[in-house]
Amino acid sequence: MDEFSFIDSIKQDVYFQPSVLKGIGDDAAVFRANNQDIITAVDTLVEDVHFSRDTMAPFDVGYRALAVNISDLAAMGAAPAFYMVSIVIPEDWSVEEIDEIYSGMKELAKQYRMDLIGGDTVSGKELVVSVSVFGLVPPDKSRYRSLAKPGDVLFVTGTLGDAQAGLEYLLGKHHFDEAVADYFISRHRQPDPRVAFALQLQSLKRVALNDISDGIASESNEIAAASGVDLHIKYEDLPRVEYMNGLEKEVCKPWMLSGGEDFELLGAVPEKDWEAVQQAAEASSTRVTKIGSVSEKKATEPVVFLYEENEKSRLTKSGYTHLRQDR
Amino acid sequence: MDEFSFIDSIKQDVYFQPSVLKGIGDDAAVFRANNQDIITAVDTLVEDVHFSRDTMAPFDVGYRALAVNISDLAAMGAAPAFYMVSIVIPEDWSVEEIDEIYSGMKELAKQYRMDLIGGDTVSGKELVVSVSVFGLVPPDKSRYRSLAKPGDVLFVTGTLGDAQAGLEYLLGKHHFDEAVADYFISRHRQPDPRVAFALQLQSLKRVALNDISDGIASESNEIAAASGVDLHIKYEDLPRVEYMNGLEKEVCKPWMLSGGEDFELLGAVPEKDWEAVQQAAEASSTRVTKIGSVSEKKATEPVVFLYEENEKSRLTKSGYTHLRQDR
Repeated sequence: MDEFSFIDSIKQDVYFQPSVLKGIGDDAAVFRANNQDIITAVDTLVEDVHFSRDTMAPFDVGYRALAVNISDLAAMGAAPAFYMVSIVIPEDWSVEEIDEIYSGMKELAKQYRMDLIGGDTVSGKELVVSVSVFGLVPPDKSRYRSLAKPGDVLFVTGTLGDAQAGLEYLLGKHHFDEAVADYFISRHRQPDPRVAFALQLQSLKRVALNDISDGIASESNEIAAASGVDLHIKYEDLPRVEYMNGLEKEVCKPWMLSGGEDFELLGAVPEKDWEAVQQAAEASSTRVTKIGSVSEKKATEPVVFLYEENEKSRLTKSGYTHLRQDR
Repeated sequence: MDEFSFIDSIKQDVYFQPSVLKGIGDDAAVFRANNQDIITAVDTLVEDVHFSRDTMAPFDVGYRALAVNISDLAAMGAAPAFYMVSIVIPEDWSVEEIDEIYSGMKELAKQYRMDLIGGDTVSGKELVVSVSVFGLVPPDKSRYRSLAKPGDVLFVTGTLGDAQAGLEYLLGKHHFDEAVADYFISRHRQPDPRVAFALQLQSLKRVALNDISDGIASESNEIAAASGVDLHIKYEDLPRVEYMNGLEKEVCKPWMLSGGEDFELLGAVPEKDWEAVQQAAEASSTRVTKIGSVSEKKATEPVVFLYEENEKSRLTKSGYTHLRQDR
């Protein structure tokens, strides 16, 4: 298949979004934002760096490549609208496998009525899937990580550590019973971006959001640094599937704090809006858990504190260090 | 250098475009289109496929990666505004070389007041530079390739075949004297997108445009197919640098027709607007040449005809085939 017939094969006959003026088929795509702000991000997956053929089918590679990008849109409070795919195809990937990658993306795109409006297909030595996404958000409703303020409630969606548990199982580093394994694997392969929940928050004036791609340890520090505040997180309040509680703490704690790739949302809202957040969670059938609070920063640099039984630790991007207990 | 300090190093302190609401530093970038249509495209360069370290310095790789994308914006009639860079970095590229790639992009971006608003940096086995660009255009002024109509004048900017001549020289396949070689090499390494000219055309109601990335043989067929018209091109009228006329025709003709990568614009406008096109060319110091005309298609499929002395050929995407002369 040459490049032109390949492009024809992935081209949509109909576009979901009325704002697409020109999709695939010209020098560039054209769309109209209709008085909404435009959100855009790019995320790239490389074979044997971000995924392996041993643990991911081509369909999952496509699904995941788009899902992680949609998660970035959710973290900005935006409605997904379009995407472009730049793919580097090596000789050892068949046309059928490449088709499967696109099928994985299309399956997810359909759920969100997203249109594939452009892309680039080139050859190379290793598979690289680079996805650019576009979302739309009402003016000044972007959910920056810099918006947390002292007094805010800190919350997180879903459960933490699942994707890492799935990966550990697939790598043969940890064993689970089949039903549990299937759940964790699906959380790793097909993350579910929290778009519906983020859109339900749109009536709120101020929400700080970050999606959990590198683990809550990393993301909470990004919010603290961007907002110039201290965060206080209670370890026992971090949401986890029941099964996780049966594991050794040395096993599950790093998964929950630093495993990452759960693509849940970490957020902060004024205390008065916490009830509205819970209603948004219910309306979008999303689990949401209060995990801590925001305060003014006490030191020169913003700090994230982790509280666990009688211990207080400093949570850093890469993990945590115990602090002497303040009395 | 870790990923975070690398991102800090490429982050702009100030953004040129007031429409950037959030650049690098959150889950995604945010901008506002202010009642303009948004144009977007992505183009990817892979080492040893699209360029080689033997013929391109890292600075040129960056310059060229952005230039080819800006050319797509010019071909849509858009003003360049922002870009994002996804880069796959292999171990054999040094931090200094990667910095040089970004310097090449920044140099060109500065000329066009474009802002780097996002990106992704990952490791891999071979260098891949994938650039997404964004441009803005007044509503309904996008210059689609489907807009050519019978009776139109066909024109092209600049001169053809130069980039291919430069590449052939660099590959040791053809020799030129130093001054000539320098000119051709610079046309290959640092193409000059025709933005200023395209923007000067903005007052015109209807213009079909395509940028010449794969050669005029390919691009003219794209306009013919998208517009459902026949095109008629006079070979002798194709613009070339004087030096090209001194070469054997078997050498220069394929360069001019199929060499590609000149990143000139091929366009069609109503006959009545040809004078305005010439004025736009003058205002933007751009050479523009009438090379033929547009007519209704005579057969089932649109055809591009090439006229040369007493010969008539059919120009296809990949070259040309002589036709029996109609008498």
